[in-house]
Amino acid sequence: MTGRAASDLPPTHASLAPFFAPNGVAVIGASRDPDKLGYGVMRNLTEAGGGYRGPIYPVNPKGGEVLGLRCYTDIADVPDPVELAILIIPAALVPDAIERCGRRGLKAAVVISGGFREIGPAGAARERDMVARARRYGMRIIGPNGIGVIDTATPLNTTFVPGMPRPGHIAFVSQSGALCGSIIDWTIGMSIGFSRLLSIGNEADINETDLLSFLAADANSRVIALYLEDIMGGPAFVPTLQEAAMTKPVLVLKTGRTVSGQVATASHTGALAGVHAAFRAACRQFGVIEVERVQTLFNGALALAYQPLPAGNRIAILTNAGGPAAVAADAFEAAGLRLARTGPQTQAALRPHLHPDAQLSGPVDMLGGAEATHYRLALEAVLADPNVDGVLTILVPQVLTKPLAIVEAIVAAACGQQPPAKPVLACLMGKASVEAAHAAAHAAEIPPYTFPEDAVEAFGILCRRASWQIGRLADRETEKRARRWPAAGEMADDVGAMGRRDVRDALQRARAAGRRMLDAVEVRPLLAAYDIPTPADALAITADEAAAHAARIGFPVAMKLISPDITHKTEVGGVLLDIADETAARRAFETLMARGRAAHPDALLRGVQIQKMVRGGQEAIVGVTRDRVFGPLVMFGLGGIYVELLADVSFRLAPLTTADAWEMLGEVRAARLLAGARGARPADRAALVDVIVRVGRLAADHPEIVELDVNPLLVLPEGEGVMAVDARLVLA
Amino acid sequence: MTGRAASDLPPTHASLAPFFAPNGVAVIGASRDPDKLGYGVMRNLTEAGGGYRGPIYPVNPKGGEVLGLRCYTDIADVPDPVELAILIIPAALVPDAIERCGRRGLKAAVVISGGFREIGPAGAARERDMVARARRYGMRIIGPNGIGVIDTATPLNTTFVPGMPRPGHIAFVSQSGALCGSIIDWTIGMSIGFSRLLSIGNEADINETDLLSFLAADANSRVIALYLEDIMGGPAFVPTLQEAAMTKPVLVLKTGRTVSGQVATASHTGALAGVHAAFRAACRQFGVIEVERVQTLFNGALALAYQPLPAGNRIAILTNAGGPAAVAADAFEAAGLRLARTGPQTQAALRPHLHPDAQLSGPVDMLGGAEATHYRLALEAVLADPNVDGVLTILVPQVLTKPLAIVEAIVAAACGQQPPAKPVLACLMGKASVEAAHAAAHAAEIPPYTFPEDAVEAFGILCRRASWQIGRLADRETEKRARRWPAAGEMADDVGAMGRRDVRDALQRARAAGRRMLDAVEVRPLLAAYDIPTPADALAITADEAAAHAARIGFPVAMKLISPDITHKTEVGGVLLDIADETAARRAFETLMARGRAAHPDALLRGVQIQKMVRGGQEAIVGVTRDRVFGPLVMFGLGGIYVELLADVSFRLAPLTTADAWEMLGEVRAARLLAGARGARPADRAALVDVIVRVGRLAADHPEIVELDVNPLLVLPEGEGVMAVDARLVLA
Repeated sequence: MTGRAASDLPPTHASLAPFFAPNGVAVIGASRDPDKLGYGVMRNLTEAGGGYRGPIYPVNPKGGEVLGLRCYTDIADVPDPVELAILIIPAALVPDAIERCGRRGLKAAVVISGGFREIGPAGAARERDMVARARRYGMRIIGPNGIGVIDTATPLNTTFVPGMPRPGHIAFVSQSGALCGSIIDWTIGMSIGFSRLLSIGNEADINETDLLSFLAADANSRVIALYLEDIMGGPAFVPTLQEAAMTKPVLVLKTGRTVSGQVATASHTGALAGVHAAFRAACRQFGVIEVERVQTLFNGALALAYQPLPAGNRIAILTNAGGPAAVAADAFEAAGLRLARTGPQTQAALRPHLHPDAQLSGPVDMLGGAEATHYRLALEAVLADPNVDGVLTILVPQVLTKPLAIVEAIVAAACGQQPPAKPVLACLMGKASVEAAHAAAHAAEIPPYTFPEDAVEAFGILCRRASWQIGRLADRETEKRARRWPAAGEMADDVGAMGRRDVRDALQRARAAGRRMLDAVEVRPLLAAYDIPTPADALAITADEAAAHAARIGFPVAMKLISPDITHKTEVGGVLLDIADETAARRAFETLMARGRAAHPDALLRGVQIQKMVRGGQEAIVGVTRDRVFGPLVMFGLGGIYVELLADVSFRLAPLTTADAWEMLGEVRAARLLAGARGARPADRAALVDVIVRVGRLAADHPEIVELDVNPLLVLPEGEGVMAVDARLVLA
Repeated sequence: MTGRAASDLPPTHASLAPFFAPNGVAVIGASRDPDKLGYGVMRNLTEAGGGYRGPIYPVNPKGGEVLGLRCYTDIADVPDPVELAILIIPAALVPDAIERCGRRGLKAAVVISGGFREIGPAGAARERDMVARARRYGMRIIGPNGIGVIDTATPLNTTFVPGMPRPGHIAFVSQSGALCGSIIDWTIGMSIGFSRLLSIGNEADINETDLLSFLAADANSRVIALYLEDIMGGPAFVPTLQEAAMTKPVLVLKTGRTVSGQVATASHTGALAGVHAAFRAACRQFGVIEVERVQTLFNGALALAYQPLPAGNRIAILTNAGGPAAVAADAFEAAGLRLARTGPQTQAALRPHLHPDAQLSGPVDMLGGAEATHYRLALEAVLADPNVDGVLTILVPQVLTKPLAIVEAIVAAACGQQPPAKPVLACLMGKASVEAAHAAAHAAEIPPYTFPEDAVEAFGILCRRASWQIGRLADRETEKRARRWPAAGEMADDVGAMGRRDVRDALQRARAAGRRMLDAVEVRPLLAAYDIPTPADALAITADEAAAHAARIGFPVAMKLISPDITHKTEVGGVLLDIADETAARRAFETLMARGRAAHPDALLRGVQIQKMVRGGQEAIVGVTRDRVFGPLVMFGLGGIYVELLADVSFRLAPLTTADAWEMLGEVRAARLLAGARGARPADRAALVDVIVRVGRLAADHPEIVELDVNPLLVLPEGEGVMAVDARLVLA
């Protein structure tokens, strides 16, 4: 994050186009020596590699020829047309070379050279210098310290990595150049095709956010796969990610390197959020598919690039072997799939054509003798079954099995469907004996996998995307649509401008007074301004006041010691409940103050909160913490041990919708208690959901709020609402 | 399970030897036609395939020659030596052919033909006939309906699957022939070697249990990998699995086909156990590594076959690229690994040799320019570090990277260690560019993986095995050793023979009386006989009796309605607590009886249990259910919602050790409450552990007990013990 100012320039898509389909490419540092990077890049640009069809200009002070092309000694001498430069020269020479490129009128540069921010302050200064010079000429930079750009449609390959990926419809952006290189090698071997591959290096100018926006609009990319280590685009990343996932499926593998900007925290919410909760919450809210394995990134992307989305998660298995089908079926639940049961009509249609011992439902097992004709007939019948949303075909080479012919039969049945077509994936087990079959499956865009578990995982990803999309398009459409990322305070809601202004003023006064943490008495009016129910209360600083407040509020009352120096008041006996009359209130006041002084002789005791006693209800906690990139993050969990011992909590970015809040209840296992377990009355979940949304609004409207714990929030029986009985707030 | 009687014959290892190293093999159904199985088997036996070096006798009524060998028209004509027959003829002809083989003096037969039990009753009858005839001659059978046996050391390949696996030290047994076939194909492609591969088909004679025992004793097999669908060896499987895992690492992939023998159940324990809990518990207790993916089975087996076990789980990462190292590090926690931190001495040793920007701890990242010499130096230094228990090396092909040379450097460092050696695994990313490096790693027994996650998972498996072994060898050695599977009643413990006899007599009386379910009043003396603490109690059948019993027991008391027809007494208000005096006891008696009659007018009301009131304590549940194969299965969980809503429970087979019971506490998340969360006093966990063990003994001693729920078991504060306040028992 050293001195980057990319956001000064609007990341217009037009300025990125020359990286993918330039009119003329200069290679600064081109070389004849096959051991040099400058040779590898030249090879990948020319026929021997990617086969870029525009003019290529090697540039090297030595002159001469490289790969049969005239080598210019200076970029200034290169004739028109030339738009893109690729730099593979020592870092020290790069800023000057960039300036010369700018002067020559180039629009874009891929800087492969290392020796910048990644090596320390001197390199960072060099990187800033390079960017500043490029800006002067309106030139854009990808890199430095990345392996560059591949576009299989143009075609263009600016990397030095041997091999050109096959054309396809997956766009891949990697923050690790080495990973990108090995993925090129691996995916060529696996026949996985790409539209564009980008290794973005230090992201001195163009970052992952710019490219995500660009790829979302790229007609040639059906799916975007991201390998991320750190978000360089700052808060702009959030709406960009949301927009991209609205347009097409986005898969992300994110490593845990990012240590969230926030410092150590005393709040439950902050402690439980860790470094990854905000990213994960964003993925859930935006329908982004987060994966945990490199292979899953591409297994899933392949299914999404090739196949239509299913209308539901009832997936049939069609197989010629029971074992692998059992392995697949065992993996269904974890992938969120249900094993489809074929209907009686389908079974009747299958029976005359299959082996008499074939299994016609559960997995449809045609047994070892199944041939191509069986696969075709059976797949057609199963695809036509209204109980089936998609089919996983499994093929294990057996005695007389002809894998290639069977894949052709699968293709015929899958491609011959009446629209809307259902997705078909293929598990082709083995290696040498199924290689031709794998290739045929790729050619027809039936994604092939070697192991049942990988195919099931990919089907699960199809279903996750479909379910998110269906949710987005169905009843909740209006609401979900309205959830485009709003600027703070921009959102239409029922919190009046007055309430919002009151809170802002109160927070500003507290900051002006140098306050960092607000206690329950101070937070109550802020919650009330957002219509978050709290019991009537007052602060007493004498025993008489305590008695008077309590009488006014109405007995019984709860009384709590208020001190900025005592964070966990229960631990010092700072809470007394069910105070029944004025005498008891006076006594309780003295007791609490004495306990406070005994526990912390130097503590500042602000007094005692007198609060209307609330009985019963289930304890919940609703909290907020703030992430450097993702902003306010709302947490929900059930009070006490569920949060503390079991970390049974759910997170969403704020602002969040009612639908999001209901989903949070679904993700917390203990929340099933709220439905009325063990004969108890159901709790007022609707009121709880409403308060979760309101807490999110409060945090989104007021960036000064760094942390907020409403704990406990008592969830009363249905119809009786909820009550925030304690709260704490930390200011920036 | 149709009419099998394999257990009539002791499964002596000697009788299995002819399957692996026979002196002469006859192929009944040998064929010249390359499209026939009988040809495939001949090809795999001869030079073109496995290259078996003993005499091979094709047998076919047509006579002539097959692959240049004289074809006999009848097994009777085959000359000595001949020990093993391979049958690939129509099922109807098999029983007779087996009889003729027996008469000719053969010792063993692999029956590949299908058409037996798997096709229904007629096939099952044929299978029984075949086995009966084999028995007559003392002949053993593998199959039918499996693809047979491969022994890479002999060498011998009785299958028809193209290709011969490489020699290695993994033994693989599969209950799916098709899966086995595709694994042969895949592992040849992956260079994974085997000692023996077995596809055991219908297991008409020899089953997985016989082979497991045999392979445990096989010096050539370092690791046993199993693919299981159903346990055919019955209860003998359990001690065999335990013995095998004591001898060498055992990995299992088990599909969920097995529906446990038990019928639907009313007990918590039975409902929560499902079909897989017993198998999983056995794996945990015996140190068997259960995996969930086919690939994991072989990834893990490869690491165990090639590398020594680590002394701990502090694993270092040595890499030439940050991205894949981050991916690996993220996978550590799930695999049970800790990222090793190299000590200052190691860092000092590395610094002069590596790139100035190299990262020397966390992942040791030598950066993209690392060459073979760097890998060797760094690996030697990291392996010598006392903070490191093993090293995951990662190699991503980069600009000047020479993968083969680097693997040779890794091999040199790994193999040059002073004993005891630490394990080294390799992640070699990419495909074409690392193929030679993969082969070199295999040759030197450094397990190579393509993706970081797979390598980490395999390292996790090494550590799981090591940790089990260390646990077994350490303090708990004596106790763990004593846990060799004892026959019921055989175990030395502190439950006197008297107590055991009393329980046996009581259970037999109840069965003789036709009782199936025993209530709390009946179960109490059984628990007491095993020194499981219960509150003083008595059964009252009149109000006066209730008052008298209560007075004798001492107030306050709890009173509970006892009826065989009312399973959930709390639901009908059948429990009253804190009864303070005789008047209240009389009134409570009438109330409970009235409630019972109101709820279930036809219910048999046995009376009211008067029980000494127990206050406080944490509710726990200890239960038993019985699995067809694995016998009694003990469950532990925390009472109420933890068990019901969160299924937060742990299982072990009975009898179990104190160490097992402590592990169960560790596996139940909510059990952290027992340590004294939120300022509460710690609970008496030692007493809880003791009762878990005693409940296990009770169930193991008395096979009549099908289900037992001790619920709730109150766990009182430390030093105050536990109290079983309610219980229910179901008899067979």
